[in-house]
Amino acid sequence: MKRLRLAVLASGRGSNLQSILDECKKGTVNAEVVVVLSDKKEALALERAQREKIPAFWLNPADFAGKKEFEEGLLEVIAEFKVDYIILAGFMRVFSPVFMRGVKVPIINIHPSLLPAFTGLDAQRQALEYGVRYSGCTVHFIDEGVDTGPIILQAVVPVYDDDTEETLSLRILQEEHQLYPKVVRLLSEGRICCKGRKVIITGVREEKDCE
Amino acid sequence: MKRLRLAVLASGRGSNLQSILDECKKGTVNAEVVVVLSDKKEALALERAQREKIPAFWLNPADFAGKKEFEEGLLEVIAEFKVDYIILAGFMRVFSPVFMRGVKVPIINIHPSLLPAFTGLDAQRQALEYGVRYSGCTVHFIDEGVDTGPIILQAVVPVYDDDTEETLSLRILQEEHQLYPKVVRLLSEGRICCKGRKVIITGVREEKDCE
Repeated sequence: MKRLRLAVLASGRGSNLQSILDECKKGTVNAEVVVVLSDKKEALALERAQREKIPAFWLNPADFAGKKEFEEGLLEVIAEFKVDYIILAGFMRVFSPVFMRGVKVPIINIHPSLLPAFTGLDAQRQALEYGVRYSGCTVHFIDEGVDTGPIILQAVVPVYDDDTEETLSLRILQEEHQLYPKVVRLLSEGRICCKGRKVIITGVREEKDCE
Repeated sequence: MKRLRLAVLASGRGSNLQSILDECKKGTVNAEVVVVLSDKKEALALERAQREKIPAFWLNPADFAGKKEFEEGLLEVIAEFKVDYIILAGFMRVFSPVFMRGVKVPIINIHPSLLPAFTGLDAQRQALEYGVRYSGCTVHFIDEGVDTGPIILQAVVPVYDDDTEETLSLRILQEEHQLYPKVVRLLSEGRICCKGRKVIITGVREEKDCE
């Protein structure tokens, strides 16, 4: 099976990028991050990529005429690297429907809640304010909505009465660092397929393929 | 501490009622179901109550001029029994705001999803159609919305690719039968208190009371 080529887009510290890089380095996953892009110059994600000699690009939104042109800029760089998947790892921008239609490979995102609960920004704070007993994280395909795409995997964490946004976020983040590499591994093994909006993981419970 | 007096309202087989009755019978919980009401003549819940010599009433909505009058009828019966809590166990009616303002004791409900996801009817089917990896059940206080009140406890179950509405419902129901008696136990121990819309369980993680 061919080695998966991944583009990772990140706006921040890139800890999810790191967990994927670590998994790839172990050699247990037939995938590699071939390019990292960020909309923030100071994103630690860019440094992490450079440390691994992975091409890393900062695209400054201010250098483009508008959202459309910025997105075209992203697509142009990504196209050069012939990737199989685009992985969002804390990329703090919502793509336009035009971008979604223009992109030729699936885009995957991780969100710090048990979707469909608590979409959008500050999911951990939303969970605390609602008063749920469990939250978690969700890796999902991106569609044209915000955090509405087909769910690949989820992980659950308890929420405690004395949790703050920080303690809950950290607990969820620890699960994210397990979950995202797990999804990359499943992708690299060709075990993820979509049936309408349902995602089937083949070879987990039963050795049956999905049509 | 005084023995809690519970009214249970149910429309169906009453398996959650049974799990509460069983817990009360064990004598480990300082609570008793003092009256059971149903809007369905054939509700097995009524039989379960009669078996335990608990007063059981069928109130036929058709015998009342309207929703308001039916709800007043319910309140009238409940008032006679001087209950501390009204427990909904598969009661398939949404109360009017007028009822909610008229009732003098907290109302508690169990819902077969991890609220706030999948409110309303057919929560298990909604979860399957969305494609979540985890679902569960939620015991919550009733407010004027549908399944929007403060969450007391939740329990999580996995959702499998080959689940049907029946297999998922059964898995969730098994958790419901653990969760609802657990909430009754906490209530009878006076360990549940509300802080705005957050419910605090005292004496679980830390021995601190909530103000």
